[in-house]
Amino acid sequence: MSCLYGVGVGTGNPELITLKALRILQSVPVIAYPASEQGNSFARSIVAEFLQDNQIEIPIILPFKLEKSAQPFYDKAAEQLAEQLSNGRDVAVLCEGDPFFYGSFMYIFNRLSPKFTTEIIPGISSVMASAAMMGIPLTYRNDVFMVLSGILSKEVLKEKLRVADAAVIIKLGKNFSKVKQVLQELGLVERAKYIENATLENQQILSIDEVEAETVPYFSLIVIPSQF
Amino acid sequence: MSCLYGVGVGTGNPELITLKALRILQSVPVIAYPASEQGNSFARSIVAEFLQDNQIEIPIILPFKLEKSAQPFYDKAAEQLAEQLSNGRDVAVLCEGDPFFYGSFMYIFNRLSPKFTTEIIPGISSVMASAAMMGIPLTYRNDVFMVLSGILSKEVLKEKLRVADAAVIIKLGKNFSKVKQVLQELGLVERAKYIENATLENQQILSIDEVEAETVPYFSLIVIPSQF
Repeated sequence: MSCLYGVGVGTGNPELITLKALRILQSVPVIAYPASEQGNSFARSIVAEFLQDNQIEIPIILPFKLEKSAQPFYDKAAEQLAEQLSNGRDVAVLCEGDPFFYGSFMYIFNRLSPKFTTEIIPGISSVMASAAMMGIPLTYRNDVFMVLSGILSKEVLKEKLRVADAAVIIKLGKNFSKVKQVLQELGLVERAKYIENATLENQQILSIDEVEAETVPYFSLIVIPSQF
Repeated sequence: MSCLYGVGVGTGNPELITLKALRILQSVPVIAYPASEQGNSFARSIVAEFLQDNQIEIPIILPFKLEKSAQPFYDKAAEQLAEQLSNGRDVAVLCEGDPFFYGSFMYIFNRLSPKFTTEIIPGISSVMASAAMMGIPLTYRNDVFMVLSGILSKEVLKEKLRVADAAVIIKLGKNFSKVKQVLQELGLVERAKYIENATLENQQILSIDEVEAETVPYFSLIVIPSQF
């Protein structure tokens, strides 16, 4: 019986994959990963050094423009993976961070899990990796912890942040200025820290006021640690 | 210059530690870990197979009874570790889950980081591991995600859960019945899932109604996944 693995590969530093992820990656005949229309894949780049020459690779090509619905692309990818699984080949899908935490693997999972055996290998999330890289404890004792998307409206972000003791705001990109305004209005600018390319060589950790809004990547984030 | 490492060892399955955690664990001369007054240490048991005979081991003995303040115990442990660090020995403190996410390592970190170089190795959190073991995607797209402690009052839990799209409730133990009541009142009993000993051989995943309240361990948790 073949198996579909969702393998968390963490945030960028290859050493932050788990022993189990490494074992699965090196034992399956088929590796799949999200990739741009040009074929670039961040997930693949994280584990490139561990892949074997004789593995079949299936890029899951996703449209860059968010306006375009990604669903037909997942349909096509699921079909390709189903073919491999039906032929008795185990397939590992590489997932940035953790497969079930704000990932795109879920769209593959939801299509294939009714038909095939699946196993999820959890990965280091950018939430934990960022606090670790900053050297700032994130949550203590009975803190209310929240993860929010920068895509949410200013009003929603404000309302939610008010009831959190600690929070991480993901998906910044062009939402950075809006999020900064929210932090200003809630008096959180001093406490919050910004990080991009966490755990990679070009990692940057900045105070909110140091960030140039125009240069903020989508996968950067802001950590608002607990007040101890 | 010696270094204090906070090493996340994940939730129980030794294969879920990172390559970096393994490298650090096997290269430092001193290993420390939280332990009971009887000397039992769950964190140590996770990585026992990787430890070397010639490593110095320092148990950080913590009182079992929560009424007793743990602070004097952390003072004593920090002193012991400081002595090793001052003698030029790197020290790795084993941390269940992730070191900066509801961990007890923070109390050591806050005492020693002003004086010594520190580095945090993030770990797989029970939050991600539990969803993976259940095979249930936790959060999609722009979901508001929350982690709540079962120790919080019924009123607070209800108020917070109302504004979350997905949540994990940690620290159950004798708080289970209260939390179950909250889930009932919010109509979340069907959606929620219970897990204990996640990623271990004696792992149990149950629906809320199947759980026997008297047997619930403190480190079990409830996952309320996003509604896709």
